[in-house]
Amino acid sequence: MTAKEILYTPIPSAEIPRYAGLSTFMRLPHLPPNEAMNVDIGLIGVPWDGGTTNRPGARHGPRQVRELSSLMRNYHPALKLSPYKLANCLDLGDTPVNPLSIEETLHLIETFYHDVVGRRIAPLSVGGDHLISLPILRALAHRHGSLGMVQFDAHTDTWDTYFGDYKYSHGTPFRRAIEEGVLDPKRTVQIGIRGGVYDEHDGDWGLEQGIRVITIEEYNDLGPDAVAAEARRIVGHQPTYVTFDVDALDPVYTPGTGTPEIGGLNTFDCQKMLRALRGLNLIGGDVVEVSPPFDPSGNTALVGATMMFEILCILAEALSQNQ
Amino acid sequence: MTAKEILYTPIPSAEIPRYAGLSTFMRLPHLPPNEAMNVDIGLIGVPWDGGTTNRPGARHGPRQVRELSSLMRNYHPALKLSPYKLANCLDLGDTPVNPLSIEETLHLIETFYHDVVGRRIAPLSVGGDHLISLPILRALAHRHGSLGMVQFDAHTDTWDTYFGDYKYSHGTPFRRAIEEGVLDPKRTVQIGIRGGVYDEHDGDWGLEQGIRVITIEEYNDLGPDAVAAEARRIVGHQPTYVTFDVDALDPVYTPGTGTPEIGGLNTFDCQKMLRALRGLNLIGGDVVEVSPPFDPSGNTALVGATMMFEILCILAEALSQNQ
Amino acid sequence: MTAKEILYTPIPSAEIPRYAGLSTFMRLPHLPPNEAMNVDIGLIGVPWDGGTTNRPGARHGPRQVRELSSLMRNYHPALKLSPYKLANCLDLGDTPVNPLSIEETLHLIETFYHDVVGRRIAPLSVGGDHLISLPILRALAHRHGSLGMVQFDAHTDTWDTYFGDYKYSHGTPFRRAIEEGVLDPKRTVQIGIRGGVYDEHDGDWGLEQGIRVITIEEYNDLGPDAVAAEARRIVGHQPTYVTFDVDALDPVYTPGTGTPEIGGLNTFDCQKMLRALRGLNLIGGDVVEVSPPFDPSGNTALVGATMMFEILCILAEALSQNQ
Amino acid sequence: MTAKEILYTPIPSAEIPRYAGLSTFMRLPHLPPNEAMNVDIGLIGVPWDGGTTNRPGARHGPRQVRELSSLMRNYHPALKLSPYKLANCLDLGDTPVNPLSIEETLHLIETFYHDVVGRRIAPLSVGGDHLISLPILRALAHRHGSLGMVQFDAHTDTWDTYFGDYKYSHGTPFRRAIEEGVLDPKRTVQIGIRGGVYDEHDGDWGLEQGIRVITIEEYNDLGPDAVAAEARRIVGHQPTYVTFDVDALDPVYTPGTGTPEIGGLNTFDCQKMLRALRGLNLIGGDVVEVSPPFDPSGNTALVGATMMFEILCILAEALSQNQ
Amino acid sequence: MTAKEILYTPIPSAEIPRYAGLSTFMRLPHLPPNEAMNVDIGLIGVPWDGGTTNRPGARHGPRQVRELSSLMRNYHPALKLSPYKLANCLDLGDTPVNPLSIEETLHLIETFYHDVVGRRIAPLSVGGDHLISLPILRALAHRHGSLGMVQFDAHTDTWDTYFGDYKYSHGTPFRRAIEEGVLDPKRTVQIGIRGGVYDEHDGDWGLEQGIRVITIEEYNDLGPDAVAAEARRIVGHQPTYVTFDVDALDPVYTPGTGTPEIGGLNTFDCQKMLRALRGLNLIGGDVVEVSPPFDPSGNTALVGATMMFEILCILAEALSQNQ
Amino acid sequence: MTAKEILYTPIPSAEIPRYAGLSTFMRLPHLPPNEAMNVDIGLIGVPWDGGTTNRPGARHGPRQVRELSSLMRNYHPALKLSPYKLANCLDLGDTPVNPLSIEETLHLIETFYHDVVGRRIAPLSVGGDHLISLPILRALAHRHGSLGMVQFDAHTDTWDTYFGDYKYSHGTPFRRAIEEGVLDPKRTVQIGIRGGVYDEHDGDWGLEQGIRVITIEEYNDLGPDAVAAEARRIVGHQPTYVTFDVDALDPVYTPGTGTPEIGGLNTFDCQKMLRALRGLNLIGGDVVEVSPPFDPSGNTALVGATMMFEILCILAEALSQNQ
Repeated sequence: MTAKEILYTPIPSAEIPRYAGLSTFMRLPHLPPNEAMNVDIGLIGVPWDGGTTNRPGARHGPRQVRELSSLMRNYHPALKLSPYKLANCLDLGDTPVNPLSIEETLHLIETFYHDVVGRRIAPLSVGGDHLISLPILRALAHRHGSLGMVQFDAHTDTWDTYFGDYKYSHGTPFRRAIEEGVLDPKRTVQIGIRGGVYDEHDGDWGLEQGIRVITIEEYNDLGPDAVAAEARRIVGHQPTYVTFDVDALDPVYTPGTGTPEIGGLNTFDCQKMLRALRGLNLIGGDVVEVSPPFDPSGNTALVGATMMFEILCILAEALSQNQ
Repeated sequence: MTAKEILYTPIPSAEIPRYAGLSTFMRLPHLPPNEAMNVDIGLIGVPWDGGTTNRPGARHGPRQVRELSSLMRNYHPALKLSPYKLANCLDLGDTPVNPLSIEETLHLIETFYHDVVGRRIAPLSVGGDHLISLPILRALAHRHGSLGMVQFDAHTDTWDTYFGDYKYSHGTPFRRAIEEGVLDPKRTVQIGIRGGVYDEHDGDWGLEQGIRVITIEEYNDLGPDAVAAEARRIVGHQPTYVTFDVDALDPVYTPGTGTPEIGGLNTFDCQKMLRALRGLNLIGGDVVEVSPPFDPSGNTALVGATMMFEILCILAEALSQNQ
Repeated sequence: MTAKEILYTPIPSAEIPRYAGLSTFMRLPHLPPNEAMNVDIGLIGVPWDGGTTNRPGARHGPRQVRELSSLMRNYHPALKLSPYKLANCLDLGDTPVNPLSIEETLHLIETFYHDVVGRRIAPLSVGGDHLISLPILRALAHRHGSLGMVQFDAHTDTWDTYFGDYKYSHGTPFRRAIEEGVLDPKRTVQIGIRGGVYDEHDGDWGLEQGIRVITIEEYNDLGPDAVAAEARRIVGHQPTYVTFDVDALDPVYTPGTGTPEIGGLNTFDCQKMLRALRGLNLIGGDVVEVSPPFDPSGNTALVGATMMFEILCILAEALSQNQ
Repeated sequence: MTAKEILYTPIPSAEIPRYAGLSTFMRLPHLPPNEAMNVDIGLIGVPWDGGTTNRPGARHGPRQVRELSSLMRNYHPALKLSPYKLANCLDLGDTPVNPLSIEETLHLIETFYHDVVGRRIAPLSVGGDHLISLPILRALAHRHGSLGMVQFDAHTDTWDTYFGDYKYSHGTPFRRAIEEGVLDPKRTVQIGIRGGVYDEHDGDWGLEQGIRVITIEEYNDLGPDAVAAEARRIVGHQPTYVTFDVDALDPVYTPGTGTPEIGGLNTFDCQKMLRALRGLNLIGGDVVEVSPPFDPSGNTALVGATMMFEILCILAEALSQNQ
Repeated sequence: MTAKEILYTPIPSAEIPRYAGLSTFMRLPHLPPNEAMNVDIGLIGVPWDGGTTNRPGARHGPRQVRELSSLMRNYHPALKLSPYKLANCLDLGDTPVNPLSIEETLHLIETFYHDVVGRRIAPLSVGGDHLISLPILRALAHRHGSLGMVQFDAHTDTWDTYFGDYKYSHGTPFRRAIEEGVLDPKRTVQIGIRGGVYDEHDGDWGLEQGIRVITIEEYNDLGPDAVAAEARRIVGHQPTYVTFDVDALDPVYTPGTGTPEIGGLNTFDCQKMLRALRGLNLIGGDVVEVSPPFDPSGNTALVGATMMFEILCILAEALSQNQ
Repeated sequence: MTAKEILYTPIPSAEIPRYAGLSTFMRLPHLPPNEAMNVDIGLIGVPWDGGTTNRPGARHGPRQVRELSSLMRNYHPALKLSPYKLANCLDLGDTPVNPLSIEETLHLIETFYHDVVGRRIAPLSVGGDHLISLPILRALAHRHGSLGMVQFDAHTDTWDTYFGDYKYSHGTPFRRAIEEGVLDPKRTVQIGIRGGVYDEHDGDWGLEQGIRVITIEEYNDLGPDAVAAEARRIVGHQPTYVTFDVDALDPVYTPGTGTPEIGGLNTFDCQKMLRALRGLNLIGGDVVEVSPPFDPSGNTALVGATMMFEILCILAEALSQNQ
């Protein structure tokens, strides 16, 4: 075993039980970004839910996803790869946050990711509410230019304002990102959209920008294979981000979330779609809206950890192919 | 905004957060029937589980469904309508009940609904165990004549007696309703029937009356579209009631219920089937058997509230078309 | 029964079961302040936890306290009084809040209470995190002058800043209130203070202002009778507020709270101390930090509702004596 | 080991783990009354909550108390006795009940206990709601004459009617028992009474009959030793029943109950008081109002099982001394 | 009703409510093997989880499955049979176990099953972790020769060693069984295999032995009908065992298990596949890995109990046809 | 700030929220023993419950205690000290364990502690079941000679064997330790002993060795101050270990434990007694039997973390005085 493998490999669960030792993402070693060397993928927590408009708690997401990620193993038999053979992976810890200030926290997160991206580390993050994707996208777009995005979600998160003229909440990140040019709406696809909306013109803005919105009804007509193919078509070969809001799934899979909508996706089909994104020019991803207080059993976090592992596999492969 | 819209419109959740304010169905205003004017649809709770033969708790259903219905929004993007634009909707509160007397409670409920129906209000109710449907059907049949019914359920609820010769329980309402002539068995369809039964002749009576029973096995062979078409064929164009027992769903969706049966329906397909009932001559509906003590998470009630919203949409449309 | 009694009396639970009907505080009628007439005590929810530094969720407190307050009855046999015979009581609903802005919410709450106090209504509130006491105190001091206060709490909540120089959090309300002159530190007593602190000078500021801090150690040495007597001595005969943070209690009584500290007060002794405050010049009170996501059983809210009833009784008596 | 010891002794937990085997009370053998020979004490479940006015679920009590009673051991070190050395003990199973009829169930229970008492078996029962004590008392009084009673409870359960003129609920059993002469009010003591009541004359009837009511306030002034002495004085040397409503305890000990009242007794003091009843002329007892749906953890049932063991010890001793 | 029907028939739930009486499997009578006469199928608990490598708790499985099996009824309408008409069924209790010794427990279990099988009783067991299948297979193979097996599982359980060279854990039973010749790998089919594995050669051994491994990906491509047909083809007409690890199902159905893997089977399709095994030469079966501490709601045990009933039906039919 | 303070000081919670970052004991830095320099006190997890005779789960204790210890702060206002000013403290991670072997695990743990103790690090450990104390005591006695011990516990844990002649379980560690001479029974005091026992001679062995057993009855007569004085008298001035089994507390404080006994200690009095042990010659301690699956709320772990902090304070002071 080489030094590199020692450093960037999960603790083996057939030697040290999964319930033993400190909780890190995937049982990987932990170092802060400035101490980490030759890292390809950084697994990062963003413990913050200041953008939440209804049920809070996603600030506790990173900790519980770390704990449940101890159930993951190293080799993905369906993709036939181990991400740890393809990329140096590390738990980079949590970003700084301020629970008392949206503005400062957006700044703190963005600064953290500028540093990470500047070190040529591809970020794979766990929220936190969906507003955390905005500063991450800003940092990535700073390096890669306007990004494509595959978004699994029950909601478009392209509303304009809440509670008067408040522009930063977990219902608005992608409107802001498009306005700022960090997200390319014509290379953005949203999968699983459903639930009641505020009024009949609710989704107009996003569609006008050119976002490809695949509602749950269209999704169920097309099936996961065709939807994944459509997603590939939309984002094309340019740099693409994957954002996975766990409320895309039916709440039986992820009850621990702030804005559950029944009638959602199932886990296997999401795994299938994520795997179908292999070969794209992926430059980062996140899993958001895991809210442990609403699911003390940890099942939501188990789903989150597994989706994180799925994204880790396709991201590691993409990075290894694009080197 | 007109006076009418002010009165019959939910509190807007982008102005007042969903967790704020008193819990009413759909965040609608609340008035008792005798104070409500020009109401088209009355949302009503029936907090009673005196007909329960195993696990009680459905008496707490209306309160938790009210709470979770705060997650609903106004516009249904798949049906492309807002019920509040089509009908004046109001929370009429709970019926009187007596936890110490089945007989008196059946009388109290029936009297309440005679009043509601007499005011030309279409009732959309939340139980309570399934026995509550009997007095509601009586009041509706008094005005509309013998009714058709689409029943989502794991059980036929057409048994004769329990524990000796007791005729009123949540396993018997539709036998009583057919015997009394308030329900037309030839215009009754039951969807999702499954689970072990007492003996091989268990379902004979219902079939002999002409009820169309679609077991889970037949359902899975046909699929939701064909089943909904069959349901439309059975009930035809005459007055029809929709009753949704949450145990029709697999218990992963609705663990908080008294008689769970595994291997059940999923939420999306139920939403699809409910939507496919649009255009029928609907005159009322209910959601029953939400038992909060068996699901403190509230997910069962969230499903119940969403199904209630689905029925509200097709009921409002039906009423607006039939005026 | 007179018109007044009809309006301001809880729904009788021996006629309508406690689980039936909409949830209001104590099953009282609900009207917004501007529609309420001749109200003496307004029961008010403040659904907001934007000042929380660790575990959020107190925004959901008012709803669950309303639900559990349905277990309260009308007559207090130990105090030998019914608050509803002494004062006109009403559920005034929730204040407006903005989950995305601390500043705006503090303004919204304060404005609401200026209106309430201006109508000569004594407020009895349910939070929300402890920061909500600050705008309430401002409104009350505007009318009554600098206030005395009896505070049940595990923490002094007189820290200066958090996360840099942020001055408004649930750890700072009473420092702000003293700085602003709305709270008189020499007439302030804090009961139940305990738990580790940041450093050895942590409590200096409060003591220098003259606050009477009764730690849990001193409390256990003195006993509840002597502590209540000391509290009466400190606040004297001038206008006094009662604030009850449920984390004053041991977390076995109130696990659903954001900052639990073990080794706390028990419920009976708190009831005893609250009752011993009868006869003081009470002008309002609150119960804060009930966080339902951390206690889905509702026991924390049951404790909150009962403490609210205890305060209601002594407040109603005080108002009736001071008229 | 003799045949008798084999038959009436719990399965030893140092040989067969406590989680193994079927659940019976105390891991005792189970036989129905008509198959049991030479039984001194019968442990009996009464799975019924038809008298419940608020939160149901006590029908599930016997099953969960059986499960948690597997944590009990054989020898009581404080009383220095093993009940199984003093009396032949057996699990007699559950009484028949009818969840659809209060009248029939009261008859079924009473008939069962007439049979048990006729066989000279002293009954130790687990409810079920408190109404189950009424038919048990009837059967015992039929043999022993008007009974004395030590009642641990938050409520007197001597109300007259509910929901109109309904006379049989869990709030009325002891009024009925006194009216019928099966309970002697002058030899009845109620310990732990507290909580709000309906009006100021609420408790008058019981006091007029001569019941000794020890409120929680008086209890806390006297302490458990003096209260137990007072209880002994009241019931004297004649046949006495012990009824333990788990809501006598503070709800932190027994959250799984239908009508929790904060500020209650603690478990150790209840154990102490029960032990202080040794030597009385005890002829039976019960533990009631364990409602598992409101405490899935089983802690309430653990308390119930332990109190059942405490009563078993003093009952076995009393029977062995009175033979 | 004949004597035989009295002895081997579940307590009827329309006469005695499902929540009443002691918990036995399917509400059947209970006798230990040496007291049971003419038994065809023995329902047996194996309360042991000493082979668990991560989350323990399956030792509590038999007790909770017994409790939830009270929800089962007698007649299977899809299979059109009642197992109790076809075979004498009895709850034989739990096997002896030793939580402090793997070796002794394997010996205790095997001895118990040699006795059961020697009495010509077909065993239907509930675990416990999956290691319990090994001693059961040994006893059955002793009589029937090398066995075929249909295994529903997320994991192959054919690993060699854990934590050094430890050969007996719940990840190794079928490797041991194949090595010992009690299981015929060429007549073994594994359905639902998924999740990450330790490395790329992880599954090689089993495939080399000739096990037919149907991964979740292949399963979803083929569908349950084709998979069941394939399973029938593999096991053929010789003696066959059915083992159902509840982690084969998606964790939304069975969260109470030690090693959950998302993206799994659903309950209805498993029921369908089990039913499709009718007519095979079945000689026993088990349901394993129900871990109640990780699902206090009991839903996992409800699924376990229902799968047990499905296997009971096809096993009873198989035995009646092969007599 | 010096280098030392940077290394051995918890992350400040007024700068980085308590829910952020990886979970370590007290938010201290983590290093394995061989990388740690100049450490005075090592905080260590022992994730193992192989000695458990009833309800397992304590293997998950260290992880949840780490998580909840994030609620601790630095300065102890009652003791007027900060342990981090008196001693270099570090999270040393978890010991190796083997869930499949009691013998190997006892060896692995003992080896780990020999290394720790050899580095002059005083260990403060979190279990794990109570058997883990045995190998820790062995390692400590190897350096310090036969030890005194203050044990908070519901059970004496001095039984001889279980399930035949098995000598190593969580009911036997202190019998083994006394037999081996690593524990001095005449300097051992057990506080809080209660609950039923197997037979009347159950406690004889321990008393014969000279252990001072303070039952809960004696404890309640003496009070915590006198008991602590007695404990000091027993252990004297020689090296002493503190072991805190969370089942010493009443299960309302610590429901998440394997063998709960009602009627136990309360948290404040335990804190008081621990503080009263200051000045003794303390050389290590542990907190055991926290079983998270039986308390998903985390309250048990919060109690465990706080008791760990109390012991940390008196241990740090003792070490600083004895240097």
